[in-house]
Amino acid sequence: MDVLKTKAFGTSRSLINSLNALSVMEIERQAPKSDEVLIEILYCGVCHSDLHQIRNDWGNTIWPCVPGHEIIGKVVQAGPAVTKFKEGDTVGVGCMIDSCGQCDSCHEGLEQYCEGPVSFTATYNGPMKPDGSGYNTFGGYSTHITVKESFVLSIPDSLDITRSAPILCAGITTYSPLRHWNVQPGQSVGVVGIGGLGHMAVKLAKAMGATVTAITRQEEKRTAAEQLGADAVLVSADDNAMTAAELSFDLILSTIPDAYDLNPYVNLLKRDGKLIIVGVLGPFKEPTNNMQVATHRRSVGGSLIGGIKETQEVLDFCAEHNIMPDVELIQMQEINDAFDRMEKEDVRFRYVIDMKSLKNH
Amino acid sequence: MDVLKTKAFGTSRSLINSLNALSVMEIERQAPKSDEVLIEILYCGVCHSDLHQIRNDWGNTIWPCVPGHEIIGKVVQAGPAVTKFKEGDTVGVGCMIDSCGQCDSCHEGLEQYCEGPVSFTATYNGPMKPDGSGYNTFGGYSTHITVKESFVLSIPDSLDITRSAPILCAGITTYSPLRHWNVQPGQSVGVVGIGGLGHMAVKLAKAMGATVTAITRQEEKRTAAEQLGADAVLVSADDNAMTAAELSFDLILSTIPDAYDLNPYVNLLKRDGKLIIVGVLGPFKEPTNNMQVATHRRSVGGSLIGGIKETQEVLDFCAEHNIMPDVELIQMQEINDAFDRMEKEDVRFRYVIDMKSLKNH
Repeated sequence: MDVLKTKAFGTSRSLINSLNALSVMEIERQAPKSDEVLIEILYCGVCHSDLHQIRNDWGNTIWPCVPGHEIIGKVVQAGPAVTKFKEGDTVGVGCMIDSCGQCDSCHEGLEQYCEGPVSFTATYNGPMKPDGSGYNTFGGYSTHITVKESFVLSIPDSLDITRSAPILCAGITTYSPLRHWNVQPGQSVGVVGIGGLGHMAVKLAKAMGATVTAITRQEEKRTAAEQLGADAVLVSADDNAMTAAELSFDLILSTIPDAYDLNPYVNLLKRDGKLIIVGVLGPFKEPTNNMQVATHRRSVGGSLIGGIKETQEVLDFCAEHNIMPDVELIQMQEINDAFDRMEKEDVRFRYVIDMKSLKNH
Repeated sequence: MDVLKTKAFGTSRSLINSLNALSVMEIERQAPKSDEVLIEILYCGVCHSDLHQIRNDWGNTIWPCVPGHEIIGKVVQAGPAVTKFKEGDTVGVGCMIDSCGQCDSCHEGLEQYCEGPVSFTATYNGPMKPDGSGYNTFGGYSTHITVKESFVLSIPDSLDITRSAPILCAGITTYSPLRHWNVQPGQSVGVVGIGGLGHMAVKLAKAMGATVTAITRQEEKRTAAEQLGADAVLVSADDNAMTAAELSFDLILSTIPDAYDLNPYVNLLKRDGKLIIVGVLGPFKEPTNNMQVATHRRSVGGSLIGGIKETQEVLDFCAEHNIMPDVELIQMQEINDAFDRMEKEDVRFRYVIDMKSLKNH
């Protein structure tokens, strides 16, 4: 077997203004090379990035587009040089399936910041080379995927595989900055946006010992945020509450997925506080006001997913601390409706596709 | 003597569109209380903030306005409880003359980030209380000033007092962030804007062992920047040079005093690099593009002057490393022309007023 023809859900064109978007298609997966494994996909999380990509919000989508980078599956074939995995192992694949392996970032286990000619190889959509040549990759909305073992994660036995997929993007994307900016027990951490990423950030920061405030526009999310373990809820639409919360956070992690004005969140930081943005990959709505930044020596930083080593670490951390994403399990055929509901923030807190539904489609 | 009537150069109204701006006026200085010293001002640096303030660029100017917060003078009278200084001592006063003394920042020697009801007491222009009441302070464009000894600096004997004044703002404002963000020998540091602050940043970062690049719009500043000790010069108007310099700086300190687009400088940072803004106290021209920030885990921070302890440290550091501001000595009567030339960037690199000219006015 050199090529496996397999089913996928994807689209061959931009889906702006199209609701009935993804549909079944056939794609090819390569048989595993010496250091690769072929994985049968069991579950795949639905990330806001999937919607950004099929809508070409970042202007870099390659067609056809098959999204999905929160993949849980089992190894069905392992190349002869593979040492970490064997047939039948439960494994995960996140946002990356390769990187240059040569640059400083790759050597330091920070493949997400790969400085090779095409950065890392995303699980779907790429990479294209700077000259526009290159190839496409297809993500987890498919029955199988072939991945180099060094980019495959072990799923600890104690994790519920029906719910674990979101750890591979939503989990690592929030865990990595919380660790990098050194969140400590007793620190005051704010999480802006209580969705797929934000709900994991609340759980992870709590497990690190921080006092966690969920910051949301919607008063209606208060109860849900408290159920996630948030110590407090701050409604950003409440001007008085926002004023009262000025100068109170060591770190704020903002997971809002679309452009917004970050200045109101800057004001909430203590002296030397950090606002870290993980949801937006583009310009904010308003320029930062440096008066608010400089007068308290604050910083605004950004972070992108996390490295492979750290992704294994967050999986193990979730197993150790009994942290699980809150998910709604859907069928592959429900994906377009799920996108529509995700846009309306009608999800608590992450959709996960049961891939049996595609196998049997 | 309870009150000293003394000469000053100031203005009683906003000076937008007015060239012939500051003129002589009489102000009152209080006789020193127990813990205060009365200082005869010998030299006063001319900071871009002086111009911002008299033009009411920040919308907070209190009239009349007497600028000047880079003050070198000698003690002419010391209150009975003063222990650090005696008559005849050469001393300095920077941007602050008091703070609440009660908050965490004050306790940590970071009076510039005082979180008391009116923040720190600026050497001129304030503070007003939040309800609009309060009092005004008058700066160094005057013959005398009365200051609490804990906000007075010792000027090391080896410093040339005709040139030292700019250390008290331009020096500490650049020294503090270079220290706080831990610039190390061998690191790559960029300095944007080669003016009053920038020329000190180049000298200080060099003395800390960094490899320093002066980043300027003007090709004409190349020679001057090299004479300051810059290892390299990057002309920001040269798109090819800017592209070639991407991902090359551990830290960039930007000293541009007016609103600009910071995104081109973000691109120059290495992974985990920091862009620190000290020149602007307001919004930038364009929103930050988080694509460039997050994809290399960069940060954009701000910093404000420095604490009293650290101001003494930079004075001693300059004495130890034989670092002196490059100044042009002017008479008090030349101040309006000096502002005009400063606007045209026609200054190498800081004007310092010889205050004898006011005494004899």
